[in-house]
Amino acid sequence: MDSFEFYNPVKILFGEGKVDEIPNEIPKDAVVLITYGGGSIKKNGVYEKVMNALKGYKVFEFGGIEANPKYETLMEAVEYARTKKVTFLLSVGGGSVLDGTKFIAAAVPFTGDPWNLLVGGNAYTVASALSIGAVLTLPATGSEMNSGAVISRKSTQEKYSFGSPLLYPKFSVLDPTFTYSLPIAQVSNGVVDAFVHVTEQYLTYPAQGHIQDRWSEGVLQTLVEFGPQAIANPLNYDLRSTIMWSCTMALNGILSVGVPSDWATHMIGHELTAFFGLDHAVTLAIILPSLLRTMRDEKRLKLLQYGKRVWGIEDGTEDMRVDKAIEATEEFFQSVGIKTRFSDYGITMDQLKPIVERFKHRGWKLGENKTITSDIIETILKGAL
Amino acid sequence: MDSFEFYNPVKILFGEGKVDEIPNEIPKDAVVLITYGGGSIKKNGVYEKVMNALKGYKVFEFGGIEANPKYETLMEAVEYARTKKVTFLLSVGGGSVLDGTKFIAAAVPFTGDPWNLLVGGNAYTVASALSIGAVLTLPATGSEMNSGAVISRKSTQEKYSFGSPLLYPKFSVLDPTFTYSLPIAQVSNGVVDAFVHVTEQYLTYPAQGHIQDRWSEGVLQTLVEFGPQAIANPLNYDLRSTIMWSCTMALNGILSVGVPSDWATHMIGHELTAFFGLDHAVTLAIILPSLLRTMRDEKRLKLLQYGKRVWGIEDGTEDMRVDKAIEATEEFFQSVGIKTRFSDYGITMDQLKPIVERFKHRGWKLGENKTITSDIIETILKGAL
Repeated sequence: MDSFEFYNPVKILFGEGKVDEIPNEIPKDAVVLITYGGGSIKKNGVYEKVMNALKGYKVFEFGGIEANPKYETLMEAVEYARTKKVTFLLSVGGGSVLDGTKFIAAAVPFTGDPWNLLVGGNAYTVASALSIGAVLTLPATGSEMNSGAVISRKSTQEKYSFGSPLLYPKFSVLDPTFTYSLPIAQVSNGVVDAFVHVTEQYLTYPAQGHIQDRWSEGVLQTLVEFGPQAIANPLNYDLRSTIMWSCTMALNGILSVGVPSDWATHMIGHELTAFFGLDHAVTLAIILPSLLRTMRDEKRLKLLQYGKRVWGIEDGTEDMRVDKAIEATEEFFQSVGIKTRFSDYGITMDQLKPIVERFKHRGWKLGENKTITSDIIETILKGAL
Repeated sequence: MDSFEFYNPVKILFGEGKVDEIPNEIPKDAVVLITYGGGSIKKNGVYEKVMNALKGYKVFEFGGIEANPKYETLMEAVEYARTKKVTFLLSVGGGSVLDGTKFIAAAVPFTGDPWNLLVGGNAYTVASALSIGAVLTLPATGSEMNSGAVISRKSTQEKYSFGSPLLYPKFSVLDPTFTYSLPIAQVSNGVVDAFVHVTEQYLTYPAQGHIQDRWSEGVLQTLVEFGPQAIANPLNYDLRSTIMWSCTMALNGILSVGVPSDWATHMIGHELTAFFGLDHAVTLAIILPSLLRTMRDEKRLKLLQYGKRVWGIEDGTEDMRVDKAIEATEEFFQSVGIKTRFSDYGITMDQLKPIVERFKHRGWKLGENKTITSDIIETILKGAL
């Protein structure tokens, strides 16, 4: 196991009605800006519950943060927050709203060009940030219990991740009933997103991270067992609780301590969203199976372990077991309603060429062994047609 | 799953040499009191490394905190810390030293009788506390990543637990090489202690805590697989890392969110330590198997799940499988060198009667269903003769 630091000070308030405890967590003299997305929170009652909890606070609001939140939109919020002298940001929504809110939190006190917080390997580190709280409405990204965010720029079709220990939410309200009214496709996306968050931290090479392996496998097993049930039973509190907690645990940092991570599926997936507007989870479901097939030799030992412990695959040659494990993964994505091939979305190899070119231009080497060059990305993309 | 709050702000510094990073974590103007136990840290080099890291700080020291730390000893440290105007406590040792240090941290600024912090269901809550850091030398109790402590009083043969969010260590250094020189019996104790910490949070009744179950099982499986190896190979970094991390994860709060806990084995075990001076882990190894046999009906469903997932027990009637799971548990404790019967320690039922009387007098009802009365405790004690 490698040396590591682990620090995660997010206070989780989990359960029905926990939104009422928000006043215990926000200073009474705070100037609060509620951030949200397309307005579903005004239809499903969440907005009303949040506003009710915030009675007595000075509250402003900024809606319209889109999926894969856009720098252009967020900069409007930054200006608004500066004008109103906001001191506390309360994100009410899913991972996109929260990621966007993290950027707003860092950008408001930043004196330079905020775009520099995102590009160039985060050359400009976050030196200060507004305080953040979160009310989660869509379990998926884990952003509610981590300090990272992914931001897109419309004008340049770019998507970058950034983070800072200053961007941990002070608290996150996880109320499973807030997920009851979600469209099925969003729950499916969440299950796939959480699943791939785990595989990015787990399907690498053996590194003596035995607890980390068991816990990763535990999240994957839980998503496989209860994901489809939670999708089919939107009003089942326990099932929705299980998925909500699984998504949070999938990316709060505890699974990756002291072990290698991959993240190539995400890096390639980000480009697919930037170029084609595909849902984030859809990009992961397309890329992961092909990436695993392409990188099967480097990942062989963990794929065998994964096949055995998560899918109960014990018979056949090593190659057969690796095949079965990858097939089971792809079929799982399909079973929750996410199609896994470019052809399902009408995307051809010709259209994918600019992505290969972009990686070639950047010269990035991805994956746990830094072996995934633009040539291998081309192979992965071809394998997912 | 029940509603819950989870908050754990401890910064973990894990790996060889991490002690050198302590100066990043303690304010430069702090007045530091190093607390430690019997002096092994002065023989194995840990003390020297800590003092080296603390160069430039104003440092005092207080040694002699014993296993099952005593109120009487700790009050000497409280007086000393007050005299020296200490602002930061650095615990260098195992769970006993750290538990004692947590008490010191709470007692120094407490204006009443500090004993009141411990008795009466913690009627006096901790309103302020000195800051704490930890350098762990003995993986076992999980105290390095939680906010609780257990303190004994010599004069009255009592042992009480207490805690407060103010008592989380600011940081904990976990260097697996610091465990190389531990006596085998202490490593065995640590493995058993961590194992029973998990079973207290897991072997109750099904409560839709699916991630919690998988993660508990993962810690148990890891301790079963690697505990004996780590004991047999004191200089193996990866094995010692695995045990160290297992012990920390076993009791940092994440396994018990939203699900019932038992803790009867610990409550009974505390009395055995108070009356007979038995090692904490030894008391757990004696009580747990008998408690599981006695409470097998209430715990049946989880015992079957535990047998299957941790021990691979799938054949036979339910009763046979429950028996096998409990036998496997007792044999595991014995396999790491911990004897599991009172007779092994020369303790008779006559000697145990005062413990039954004490529980009868208190009127406590223990366990996840609050059904373990003094009568049942008598049955459990008899079953462990």
